[in-house]
Amino acid sequence: MSRERLYLYDTTLRDGQQTPGVDFSVEDKIAVARMLDEFGLDYVEGGYPGANPTDTEFFGRRQTAAAKFVAFGMTKRVGISASNDPGLAALLQSKADAVCFVAKSSEYQVRVALGCTAEENLEAIRASVEAVRRAGKEAMVDCEHFFDGFKENPGYTLACAKAAYEAGARWVVLCDTNGGTQPSEVRAIVKQVIEAGIPGENLGIHAHDDTGQAVANSLAAVEAGVRQVQGTLNGIGERCGNANLVTVMPTLVLKPAYAERFETGISAERLTGLSRLSRAFDELLNRAPAAQSPYVGQSAFATKAGIHASALAKEPATYEHVPPEAVGNRRRVMVSDQGGKANFLAELARRGIDVPKSDSRLDELIAVVKEREASGYAYEGADASFELLARKVLHGLPEFFGVSGFRCMVERRFDANGQLKTVSEAVVRIEVDGEQKMSVAEGHGPVNALDIALRKDLGRYQDEIADLELADYKVRILNGGTGAITRVLIESFDGTGARWWTVGVSDNIIDASFQALMDSIVYKLMKNREMAGLTAAE
Amino acid sequence: MSRERLYLYDTTLRDGQQTPGVDFSVEDKIAVARMLDEFGLDYVEGGYPGANPTDTEFFGRRQTAAAKFVAFGMTKRVGISASNDPGLAALLQSKADAVCFVAKSSEYQVRVALGCTAEENLEAIRASVEAVRRAGKEAMVDCEHFFDGFKENPGYTLACAKAAYEAGARWVVLCDTNGGTQPSEVRAIVKQVIEAGIPGENLGIHAHDDTGQAVANSLAAVEAGVRQVQGTLNGIGERCGNANLVTVMPTLVLKPAYAERFETGISAERLTGLSRLSRAFDELLNRAPAAQSPYVGQSAFATKAGIHASALAKEPATYEHVPPEAVGNRRRVMVSDQGGKANFLAELARRGIDVPKSDSRLDELIAVVKEREASGYAYEGADASFELLARKVLHGLPEFFGVSGFRCMVERRFDANGQLKTVSEAVVRIEVDGEQKMSVAEGHGPVNALDIALRKDLGRYQDEIADLELADYKVRILNGGTGAITRVLIESFDGTGARWWTVGVSDNIIDASFQALMDSIVYKLMKNREMAGLTAAE
Repeated sequence: MSRERLYLYDTTLRDGQQTPGVDFSVEDKIAVARMLDEFGLDYVEGGYPGANPTDTEFFGRRQTAAAKFVAFGMTKRVGISASNDPGLAALLQSKADAVCFVAKSSEYQVRVALGCTAEENLEAIRASVEAVRRAGKEAMVDCEHFFDGFKENPGYTLACAKAAYEAGARWVVLCDTNGGTQPSEVRAIVKQVIEAGIPGENLGIHAHDDTGQAVANSLAAVEAGVRQVQGTLNGIGERCGNANLVTVMPTLVLKPAYAERFETGISAERLTGLSRLSRAFDELLNRAPAAQSPYVGQSAFATKAGIHASALAKEPATYEHVPPEAVGNRRRVMVSDQGGKANFLAELARRGIDVPKSDSRLDELIAVVKEREASGYAYEGADASFELLARKVLHGLPEFFGVSGFRCMVERRFDANGQLKTVSEAVVRIEVDGEQKMSVAEGHGPVNALDIALRKDLGRYQDEIADLELADYKVRILNGGTGAITRVLIESFDGTGARWWTVGVSDNIIDASFQALMDSIVYKLMKNREMAGLTAAE
Repeated sequence: MSRERLYLYDTTLRDGQQTPGVDFSVEDKIAVARMLDEFGLDYVEGGYPGANPTDTEFFGRRQTAAAKFVAFGMTKRVGISASNDPGLAALLQSKADAVCFVAKSSEYQVRVALGCTAEENLEAIRASVEAVRRAGKEAMVDCEHFFDGFKENPGYTLACAKAAYEAGARWVVLCDTNGGTQPSEVRAIVKQVIEAGIPGENLGIHAHDDTGQAVANSLAAVEAGVRQVQGTLNGIGERCGNANLVTVMPTLVLKPAYAERFETGISAERLTGLSRLSRAFDELLNRAPAAQSPYVGQSAFATKAGIHASALAKEPATYEHVPPEAVGNRRRVMVSDQGGKANFLAELARRGIDVPKSDSRLDELIAVVKEREASGYAYEGADASFELLARKVLHGLPEFFGVSGFRCMVERRFDANGQLKTVSEAVVRIEVDGEQKMSVAEGHGPVNALDIALRKDLGRYQDEIADLELADYKVRILNGGTGAITRVLIESFDGTGARWWTVGVSDNIIDASFQALMDSIVYKLMKNREMAGLTAAE
C-alpha cells in the first residue's frame, strides 16, 4: 500500500531563536543543524543570512548533508526591483538550498504594517519567488497571519497564497502567526484553500502554541490535506513556542491514523533516538528537560505506586499508549518494588556489574540512591557517579588517594596599574601512599583553580590522569537564593575517546564542584584498571 | 441569545496527585480547594476518602462553598452487596456533595485486570450509582479506557456508559486513560455515544496529554457534544499530565467559537485572576512556573524580534491573540541583540525613561547593549541591570558607594570532631562618603558569604536596604569547562513587593555574582529615590 510523503520542516534555528533566553552562537547552530540532519528532518531552516553576523557566517557554507538547508528572509522591498534588493541578494548568495520568504497575507496587515498597496505586496511575492528559482534554489513562502487574514478577507489572503504558488513556490506555508486559531478553524480553512486551487502537496502548516494546540493544529491541517509540517525541537519559539516536532514526529510515525496514510523521513529506528535528541537539545540550552513532555519526558512513562503500577506489570499497554522503547524512553515505576529492582538490575548489568536479585546490598544501593536523589543528586545525568556509588555499595572501592583539605581564595583588588582585577587561587592537601602533598594553583575562578591544583600532583597516579580533560561544567541551583542547594555536573573525557559525567551536590558551589571533580578522577583511575584487567587495588 | 452551560471539573487534588514529585498535605489540599472554589470551578474532586489518612481527614468536612465537592473511588466490589462494601461506605459517609466512581469500560480490561464477568462489572456500576443517589449525593462515573475500549468492542463499552446513565448518574465521563487517542477519534466516538442514546448534557471528557493534545481532545469532545470538561491546574497529572484547565478556561471564555455558544462559571472578571491562580499553584508546589505556558507564562506575551516589536507598538493584536490583561498577564518586549530601536524605545518608555528617537545617546546605548550581549550578558532576563545601564548611558547614575576590593575564602578542613567540613568567608572593602569600611561574613558558599558581607554596612544607605532580599540565583556556563565564561542572574525583592533581576558575566563565578549583587543594591537605592521623587544624588 503506497503512503503519501509528509515533509518535516524544522525552524528551531530561526523561529526558535525568538524564545526569550535562547541565543544561539554559530557553534550552537552548527551542532543543532547536524542533530536535525542526522535525525532525518527534510528541511532545516537556519536563520537570516545578511541580517546579522552570526547568521551570515553560518550560511557561509552548507550545514546539512541530507536535509535541505533553508535561508529565511523578507520578500523584496516594494519600490525596488528584485535584482537591486540587498536583503534578497544576501539570501541568494548564501549556501542555502532553499529560501523561505515571509510574506504578509492579510489585507489589513499589508495596509497597516507594510503601508503598501495590496497589489504591490502580491508583486513582491511573485518577483521574490521568481528570483529564487532563477538562482537555482527551491522557493517557499510563509504566509504570515494567514488564518486571521483569511477570516477577515479570504479573497486577498488566497490571492497572496496563489501568487506564491503560481510563481513557482514549492511550498506555500499557512502560518497561524499569533497562535490563536482553533483546530476546527484550521481544518475548515485548509479545505477552502485546496478547493481554491492550491494542491495540498504544496501546502505547509506553521502553528504556534498560544492556546496549547500547536500540535493539534498541525495534525488537523495534515488531515485536511497539507503535506509539510513546521515546528521546533522541544517546542521552543516566540511566546508560547512553535509546534513541538518532538511530539509531532512520534505521533505521525507511531499512531495508526497517520502511520497508515503517511510516510516521513523518520524511520522507526531513528525514532528510538528521539529522547536522546530532545535531551541533547536541552543540554545545549542548559536547561532542565520538562519532566512531563509527551513521549520523551522523564515522567512520560512513569507511574506512582498502587493500582496502576501492578496493572502495568501485568499488561504495559494498559497505561502506555506506545512502548517507551519506541522513542528511546523508559518505563519508571516510582517505588522500590520488583519493577524498580528490575530497572536497577538492568542498569547495573549494562555496566558489567553483576549482583543477584536477592542480594541485600542491592536493597541498600536502591535506598542510598533514593535518599541521595531526594537531596538533589541526579544520577540519570551522571553515569560515572552512579557507577562509582554502585561499586562502592556492592563491592567496595579502593581509596586511591585522600584529600585532607583544600582552600580556595578569590580576591578582587587593585593591581600595580590601579586597575581592579580578580584573582583566584586554590591550595589542596592530598595524601597518597601515606605521603602528604600540597599543591597550589591559580585559575579562572575558584573551581578552575581547584581543578588545576587537584590534578597537579597525584603521586604515582599522576601519569595516569595526564590525558584526563574536562569538557563541560554545568551548574543548577535547585531552590532559592545565593545560599541554595547547588548541583554541579561535570563532563570529562580522555585519550581513549571515552566521555563520562559526574555529579556533586552541596549548599556550597565549591564543595559541589569538588565532589564532581573527585568522582571524575576516581572514575578515570578505576576505568584504567578495568581496561588493564587489573584488580582495583593494583 | 441563550448559551448552553458547560461545566468545569477540577481533578488537581486527585489525578494531579499522581504527578511524580507531587504530594499534597491536608493543608495544601484545603488551600487548593479554596483557590478553585473562589475562581468559579463547578466541581472540585478532592481524593479518595477511606483510602488514606490525608484524604479521610480532608473529607471530614465540606471544603468548598460554591463548587460541588467530589469524592473519588472504585465501584463496589464484585461478590458483595453495595451496603456491605467498606470502600463504598467511606465515600457515602464523607462530606462530599458528589461521588465519582472509576469503572472499567473496556471488555478486555474487565477480563484481564478485574477478572470478573462483563455482566458483573455492569451490575457493580449500577449498584454503586444507585447507592450514591440513595445517600442523597450526585453520582458520576469515570469510564476508564473508554476510547481504547470502544475501538476494540464498542458494544460493551457503550453498555458500561449506559449502565451508569440509566442508573441515574448525572455525568458519564469518557476517559482517555492512556492518553493516546487523537482529536478526530474523540470527535467521532463522542458522536456515536450521543447517537447511541446518552445525551451530551450528561457526558464529560477526561483527557491526558501523552500526545500533547489533552486540550485539543477536550475541546473536540465539547464540539462533538459533551458538556463537562475535566482537568487540572497547570496540567499536572500522571505521566504527561491531564488537560490543563488554565489553558482550557480562557479558550472557552475568550475564543468566539466557544464563547458565543457556551457559558461557564468563569466570568470575564474572574479570568483576570488566571495568571495569579496559576502562579500561586506553582508557588504551592515550590516549582518555577513554565515560561511558555499558554496565556499565563512569563513569555506568553513576550516578543524579542525587532520587526515584531515595531508592529506590536502600532497594533497589539498583530501578535497577541487575546489581550494579556484579560488573563492577568502583561506584554513584554525583550531587549536583545535581535531587537531594533523600537524595542529599546518601548522598553525605556515603560520604565519612565524618555529619549528622542534621534538622540545619539540612544545609538550609543544600543551599541553598548549589543556589545555586552555578545560577551555573554543577557539583558532580556535582567530588567534591572538593563535599566541601570540605560540610565547610566543616557543620563548618568550617581555613585552611591564604591567597593575597593573583596576576598572570598572557601576552606575544607577537619573540624574539632575530626569531621571534614567546608566553611566560606568573605571580606568586603567599601567606601561610603569618603569613609572606608570593612565587613566580614560567613555564608553557605562563597557567593552567599559575599552577599551577606556586602550588605552588612553601607553607612547611611544601610537602613534603606533592610527590606532587600534575594529570591533566586541562577548560573549558566556559556562555554566549556571549569574555566568557562559564567553568567549569573539574581532575582531580588523588597518590602513593596517589587521584584527585579540583575546580571553579571565573568570567567570567574564570584566576580559575575558580585556584579549582579552590586546591580541589585544600586537598583534598589535608585528605585527608593524614584519613589520618593528625589533626585538620585539626594
